[in-house]
Amino acid sequence: MNDFSLADYLRDRQVVVEQALSDALTVSFPEQIYEAMRYSLLAGGKRLRPILCLAACEMVGGELAIALPTACALEMIHTMSLIHDDLPAMDNDDFRRGKPTNHKVFGEAMAILAGDGLLAYAFECIAHTRGVPSDRLVRVIQIVAHAASHHGLVGGQVVDLAMAGRADVEESILHYIHTHKTGALLKACVLSGAVLGGAEDVADLGVYAENIGLAFQIVDDILDLTATTEQLGKTAGKDTRDDKVTYPKLWGIEASQQKAQALVAEAKAKLAKYGAQAVPLQALADFVIQRDR
Amino acid sequence: MNDFSLADYLRDRQVVVEQALSDALTVSFPEQIYEAMRYSLLAGGKRLRPILCLAACEMVGGELAIALPTACALEMIHTMSLIHDDLPAMDNDDFRRGKPTNHKVFGEAMAILAGDGLLAYAFECIAHTRGVPSDRLVRVIQIVAHAASHHGLVGGQVVDLAMAGRADVEESILHYIHTHKTGALLKACVLSGAVLGGAEDVADLGVYAENIGLAFQIVDDILDLTATTEQLGKTAGKDTRDDKVTYPKLWGIEASQQKAQALVAEAKAKLAKYGAQAVPLQALADFVIQRDR
Repeated sequence: MNDFSLADYLRDRQVVVEQALSDALTVSFPEQIYEAMRYSLLAGGKRLRPILCLAACEMVGGELAIALPTACALEMIHTMSLIHDDLPAMDNDDFRRGKPTNHKVFGEAMAILAGDGLLAYAFECIAHTRGVPSDRLVRVIQIVAHAASHHGLVGGQVVDLAMAGRADVEESILHYIHTHKTGALLKACVLSGAVLGGAEDVADLGVYAENIGLAFQIVDDILDLTATTEQLGKTAGKDTRDDKVTYPKLWGIEASQQKAQALVAEAKAKLAKYGAQAVPLQALADFVIQRDR
Repeated sequence: MNDFSLADYLRDRQVVVEQALSDALTVSFPEQIYEAMRYSLLAGGKRLRPILCLAACEMVGGELAIALPTACALEMIHTMSLIHDDLPAMDNDDFRRGKPTNHKVFGEAMAILAGDGLLAYAFECIAHTRGVPSDRLVRVIQIVAHAASHHGLVGGQVVDLAMAGRADVEESILHYIHTHKTGALLKACVLSGAVLGGAEDVADLGVYAENIGLAFQIVDDILDLTATTEQLGKTAGKDTRDDKVTYPKLWGIEASQQKAQALVAEAKAKLAKYGAQAVPLQALADFVIQRDR
């Protein structure tokens, strides 16, 4: 693990994930819904969520293959939330990952249904995992469904929408939004991977995941202020335009960067007991704050 | 079982289901999403889906209590599909069960999120069922997710939307729409209840469920032609207004009624091996074609 290259690791895993996602949705009748689901699911992106799931499974001693259906399911749920968030009734975004958003291409009705299909299919995929004891699968479904429901990302999006255009949002509310809208699913990625791999006590991994989730969001907010639309593949400066409260606006950019670094350092420390097996998850924690898009 | 009264049975079961649905969603922060989810979930209705699930579980020898979380989950998924189908981008309906539709009360964004929340939470509920072996729960989640995804009701809604306003729809397409949009979830209700109760071979129950699902849709189409808006609690005559192909338009009302009766007779015959235990599911099959709303 001494010559571990995160760039190579990410490239390898992205290939595995892209193939599995494509295989999970081979076009059939009615073709329109498959095309709409595939359009957003296979639109690229970092694949951070499925890669975190696979890495957590392997770190605790599980085979990559047993985590692959759940990894794909997590990316499906993430994609569902992007498709629905982009709808005119929600954030009304025209571009995502440098491409027109789902409803711009397929219409609103199909975009709503593509999201619904991906959300339900995610659980179908997890429940059809082979070679994993059923009690682990049930626990994984508890974790993933909790993160996807109003207990997780739906709750985060609700509060985010309710706070839109309000400049007086308290830090505790901002924290709620981010730990739910972004953090909950990232945490589910790490915990589900670990459970699939056979881990019993996942408390340390929970802290790891919460910290990188929050760091991820802080960096997202900083990038919204400092990066270009071209670089992000989505509209930059949106938070300022929408008068949205963010960490860098509350704390300043420099203090936000330091906070993100401290969160990642603590996250990495939580993996100490896994020794060399933790190298990929530690590198992924660094990646969360070093990325430029 | 000789003095079995379906009216009493339905009333008792509706009370059990209403209470369980309400208990499953006690209001918490953020209140708006709970209120939106509860508004549609607790808007009444026949509760046919959860009652079918409970009845199937009991018929094969299981306790009612072990099927209750899944019964609620099935009603949540049904409610999700109604909320999303009613959206302006889809069927654009203002009334449902005699009340303004979800988006009319809470806005489109909240209606989309309430549906997403109910869909994800459904799987959370099933996965938290106590007192059932995990392998049964995994099988139930396979069944329910399949019915909710593009393999089931999402697929049916996609084709239904694609055929809107077309008078040249073939019977095979109409069959696809109904077996997916309505039939898939009804079948999942019966099969999941039976699996929870310990049934291994559910082939006969699959035929039972498919038949009553199709009969249910035929009766729905007939009621759209013959009943009033007041009676239905939703807009009557909608299929004619939308120039939609339906069974009574293809076959005539009388032949459609005969077809529905034949389907129900065959469905009931499939339950013969369960003897007196089958009385509730047989009565529910009759109810599907005798209802007036």
